[in-house]
Amino acid sequence: MDIEKGTVLKNEEGWLALEKFLLKKKPSKIFILADENTNMLCTPLFKNKLKIKIQFEVLTIPTGEKYKNIDSCLTIWEKLSEKNADRNSLIINLGGGMITDIGGFIASTFKRGIEFLNIPTSLLAMVDASVGGKNGVDLGPVKNQIGVINNPLFVLVEMDFLKTLPKEQLLSGWVEMLKHGLIYSEKYWNEMQSLNFENNEALENGIWESIRIKKEIVQKDPFEKNERKTLNYGHTLGHAIEAYFLENAEKSTLLHGEAIAIGIILATYISHKELNFPKDKLNEIAHHFQSYFPKQSFFEEDIAKILKFLIFDKKNQNGKVLFVLLKDIGNYRTDCVVPNSTIFKAFDFYKNF
Amino acid sequence: MDIEKGTVLKNEEGWLALEKFLLKKKPSKIFILADENTNMLCTPLFKNKLKIKIQFEVLTIPTGEKYKNIDSCLTIWEKLSEKNADRNSLIINLGGGMITDIGGFIASTFKRGIEFLNIPTSLLAMVDASVGGKNGVDLGPVKNQIGVINNPLFVLVEMDFLKTLPKEQLLSGWVEMLKHGLIYSEKYWNEMQSLNFENNEALENGIWESIRIKKEIVQKDPFEKNERKTLNYGHTLGHAIEAYFLENAEKSTLLHGEAIAIGIILATYISHKELNFPKDKLNEIAHHFQSYFPKQSFFEEDIAKILKFLIFDKKNQNGKVLFVLLKDIGNYRTDCVVPNSTIFKAFDFYKNF
Repeated sequence: MDIEKGTVLKNEEGWLALEKFLLKKKPSKIFILADENTNMLCTPLFKNKLKIKIQFEVLTIPTGEKYKNIDSCLTIWEKLSEKNADRNSLIINLGGGMITDIGGFIASTFKRGIEFLNIPTSLLAMVDASVGGKNGVDLGPVKNQIGVINNPLFVLVEMDFLKTLPKEQLLSGWVEMLKHGLIYSEKYWNEMQSLNFENNEALENGIWESIRIKKEIVQKDPFEKNERKTLNYGHTLGHAIEAYFLENAEKSTLLHGEAIAIGIILATYISHKELNFPKDKLNEIAHHFQSYFPKQSFFEEDIAKILKFLIFDKKNQNGKVLFVLLKDIGNYRTDCVVPNSTIFKAFDFYKNF
Repeated sequence: MDIEKGTVLKNEEGWLALEKFLLKKKPSKIFILADENTNMLCTPLFKNKLKIKIQFEVLTIPTGEKYKNIDSCLTIWEKLSEKNADRNSLIINLGGGMITDIGGFIASTFKRGIEFLNIPTSLLAMVDASVGGKNGVDLGPVKNQIGVINNPLFVLVEMDFLKTLPKEQLLSGWVEMLKHGLIYSEKYWNEMQSLNFENNEALENGIWESIRIKKEIVQKDPFEKNERKTLNYGHTLGHAIEAYFLENAEKSTLLHGEAIAIGIILATYISHKELNFPKDKLNEIAHHFQSYFPKQSFFEEDIAKILKFLIFDKKNQNGKVLFVLLKDIGNYRTDCVVPNSTIFKAFDFYKNF
């Protein structure tokens, strides 16, 4: 099989490639890594779709971002050892971005790296985590602080998994597709804004286009020296908000997409203040995201604490927090330093919009 | 600077390259990772040798192989986060193989990889851990179960560090040099056998030759599909013995070289039984290693427990323990399956020699 590592294959094409791989390489053991939720919802569909009979063992992690940590890695590494996984074993990561992230890291480091395959089952994982080989786990409240860049054998995107997904999870994935539009082109942003989730063909095309855009960006800059940073649009504050809500017992947990939607509104306001991003488009973007997600409240003290999380952002250099901003849709600037006062104003804008 | 990653530079040449790198790249922060022992003995010499003044912070791990684990990684990852290490920070691993192994892993995974440099301070680390980019930590009693392959910026071998080393540590490193002889050529085996440690120039040449041999083997086969496995000669049982002694409170802890010396005697006996390795050379090899290391006793129950550790060996495939054996000095066979009865006989040979 000569598929380049990290290639995304969809539906039948993906299952065929998996069958070929299994028949040709005959892994010594096959492990499916899933969270408890995806194991229940997605493992039956996995068995159904695969036309050949295989023996596999399911290893599970509890459901939820808070288990994306080194402790969960230790549990799985130990289970792999107990079950005599060797360098010819295969790990199939079946789940959302939490599973493909942690599973990619577990496989990349077990015995200094064994083969793995990603089968994203959420819209978010299909359009975002599926491309680019980033994997890893959180360190305390800091998102994705530990990890490596290493591509899976390939990525299998099966549209039928989306049928297992609740509406808010679809919305969460959509946010990343919209973000791809904002950093890439007005045309794609408009297409994404009017995407009809009820129409399977439209959704599939949208997913495919979104993967294509991310791939184009990653290929230009695999090690995130410049262009790839644009994929972090809205994520500097979005990740900090997500981490703060995760750590704070009084706050509800936000879905990744919910936090990033707020981050995008804030980043776009900052872009307007710092780089003259057009006011009418700022309003259009803020309106679009706010109409899909409930407004969260941020008090002065919340914002101060969120700002503290910014120092962990992986784009930072020499103690400076660096933002990706936009001059216009599809026209980005990386490594922008932003005064804290502007960030506070951005939260005001979000609150009063 | 255009030094290829993983290049080994010695003495003045190495310090000059380090100074150039620091002046040109200006890392945002410099961290020295050391164990408590090497920090005391080697950090002063490090400061002395470097001709330019730099600011750095020392991060320490307690001394000893038993701290080469994920817990120590967590402690260091957290300290790096606290101290705002970013992607332009540099980690200098200053110490024996334990430090270069764990430090390489910590740097390769922190924020998905930051730059690092290895300065091996033990003979073992200079001739073995310095080349090939392997890094990692132990998982429970299983050696190097978690890690990646990733080369440091370069490796700086400074002979003066050897002056801080007790005799038994020199002997431990020598074992790996002798192993390089056994798998490579009779000529080099003879040279290594008669190496005079008191003669600095001879020692330096020996180290250099040993690094050259390892490099030649690793370059042919960076991902250990075939030739590179030969570097594990004596390590299949040697690692199992080392792990068993480490885990067993009643046993003294063996130095890596001590365990590997026993592993080499056993592997050579097995080579004699399975591949007709010449009897006279087997006796010469056993005699050589036994004259430098105290004989350990192995009871039937010890051997049975050591055999259980073999299932974790990273060369294993499909549940089979695979040995590297020799037909003669410099003439190897990889992937050899060995009956347990022969392994028991090998321990008999060791006991009665």
